[in-house]
Amino acid sequence: MEKIIKKAYTESIENERKGDKEEEVEAIKRIILNAKKIIIATNNQKKFKVIGDILSHIVNAKIEMLNINTNYADLTRMPAVNKGLMAVDTEKADLIIARGRLGVPGSGSMLVIMDGKGRILSASLSPSSVLHKEDIEVRIKKELIDALKRIGIDIQPLYYKNE
Amino acid sequence: MEKIIKKAYTESIENERKGDKEEEVEAIKRIILNAKKIIIATNNQKKFKVIGDILSHIVNAKIEMLNINTNYADLTRMPAVNKGLMAVDTEKADLIIARGRLGVPGSGSMLVIMDGKGRILSASLSPSSVLHKEDIEVRIKKELIDALKRIGIDIQPLYYKNE
Amino acid sequence: MEKIIKKAYTESIENERKGDKEEEVEAIKRIILNAKKIIIATNNQKKFKVIGDILSHIVNAKIEMLNINTNYADLTRMPAVNKGLMAVDTEKADLIIARGRLGVPGSGSMLVIMDGKGRILSASLSPSSVLHKEDIEVRIKKELIDALKRIGIDIQPLYYKNE
Amino acid sequence: MEKIIKKAYTESIENERKGDKEEEVEAIKRIILNAKKIIIATNNQKKFKVIGDILSHIVNAKIEMLNINTNYADLTRMPAVNKGLMAVDTEKADLIIARGRLGVPGSGSMLVIMDGKGRILSASLSPSSVLHKEDIEVRIKKELIDALKRIGIDIQPLYYKNE
Repeated sequence: MEKIIKKAYTESIENERKGDKEEEVEAIKRIILNAKKIIIATNNQKKFKVIGDILSHIVNAKIEMLNINTNYADLTRMPAVNKGLMAVDTEKADLIIARGRLGVPGSGSMLVIMDGKGRILSASLSPSSVLHKEDIEVRIKKELIDALKRIGIDIQPLYYKNE
Repeated sequence: MEKIIKKAYTESIENERKGDKEEEVEAIKRIILNAKKIIIATNNQKKFKVIGDILSHIVNAKIEMLNINTNYADLTRMPAVNKGLMAVDTEKADLIIARGRLGVPGSGSMLVIMDGKGRILSASLSPSSVLHKEDIEVRIKKELIDALKRIGIDIQPLYYKNE
Repeated sequence: MEKIIKKAYTESIENERKGDKEEEVEAIKRIILNAKKIIIATNNQKKFKVIGDILSHIVNAKIEMLNINTNYADLTRMPAVNKGLMAVDTEKADLIIARGRLGVPGSGSMLVIMDGKGRILSASLSPSSVLHKEDIEVRIKKELIDALKRIGIDIQPLYYKNE
Repeated sequence: MEKIIKKAYTESIENERKGDKEEEVEAIKRIILNAKKIIIATNNQKKFKVIGDILSHIVNAKIEMLNINTNYADLTRMPAVNKGLMAVDTEKADLIIARGRLGVPGSGSMLVIMDGKGRILSASLSPSSVLHKEDIEVRIKKELIDALKRIGIDIQPLYYKNE
């Protein structure tokens, strides 16, 4: 990943950057699919189960819950991202999945997929729960499927086949 | 907004926070709909036009392009968010719309709506352009409509009525 | 400030930036010395008093304590900076003074001076308290004097004259 | 480091945190003194040499320059920190040293020591160059010595002995 980022940064510095490249998306997919240890930055058992179940269909990894309370990330400007960074800083892992508020109170939620250094690989968003009274487990499932799809991991057929 | 955020933070500190509230979503809508000056953090004339056209249907504001090159935000961990902060720091505005890469190269794009202090009000995401070969103007239009819809501003009927 | 930052950003984009300029330092001083409302991002009465006393020698401002618990900023990568942002997001103010840990546990402390949008104007650092067993009030006093001195506000003679 | 941070975070969550601990400072020192690969986030040969020379007195590591232009970090809110993150994201390293502007234009400079994940271990600050017309190499030398001293690595006697 480091080399790919360096190449992209060099293109940006030289004003030659023209958007994402296939090899970059492939590199992201590789990090996700080859992860050996994944931390889910939640201390909610149900949310953990939903995310863990989906991931176990596509990766052969040890999937663990972050055993510290991540709620205080709500006191930051980007709660979901900061939940992820709490996991990055307190765990050695290949992949981190965090879910929380996007921005200010009322701004709805974000699910974010980070690598072990806290680099953001993908994400997905949901409307504010006030507007979208869907069951939270259904919501999170959609969010994870959506975040993976954005970078070319189409989990839906695979996943539903197994249901 | 300050009072609403303080109230939400206090709830989080006391472990009594239970998710977004209607008054919070209303406060976000009010900031957006009452904006008098909006900066669009892009130096691309086409992108500016797409976003400006949609916004002019819902707000009575002075809408301006940020007249500095925002491309170097690609050298940061969250390019779209940092483009927005470039506008926050170089302009006085009520609202800022920025669009750029979500995270690492290959991670697709993000459109973000911030207030004048850089607080994130809403956002939306698109897949990596490698996977989604849609026209960029169509894409941006969808992103803005989507970002507004997440917090209860349904622009679609209004907007298409005018087409 | 917005104009000065824009000018500096434009120089950086054109690769013509050559370091801080006198007018930039002057602009920072002006923001500090003309502040009408200052928030001190601490909920510790003693720390508030030390900082408020010094500031009252140089500014004619309403100085208030942030009445929410900022301790949970310790769960972030840059606690002092995030304490300041908690104040930015929950208060309308011209100036914010925050003090907390610099980075990881053990990394010592930082006092940071921000404007009302969260832009960093100055700061100062202290060694880890483990190494530097000085009284915390003496320490904070030094930190504030030092942070002001860095940008040309020499408070020491003025301050000690008044003691 | 992960375990030590988790322990400190848990203390903060339980409101039992009482400031830095000796074992935390020791952990920081260990990361620095045992580093096998260090990246200096500058593309200035002179600055690299000053920093590299000092470090080579205390660590037995491969010390390299970041071979991308870090100047565009000046378009962010915390240029020095963002230079460091550019190195974190484009290199595999145990330690990263970055130097740049602290905050807004005019805010003086910061030298920051990060680990390979971007966690901040120590830092030091210099006044704005407008106010402090010292030679930049002398300045950087002082900054590095100061940043190390804050966390208990007293390089001065060792260093000058070797001159």
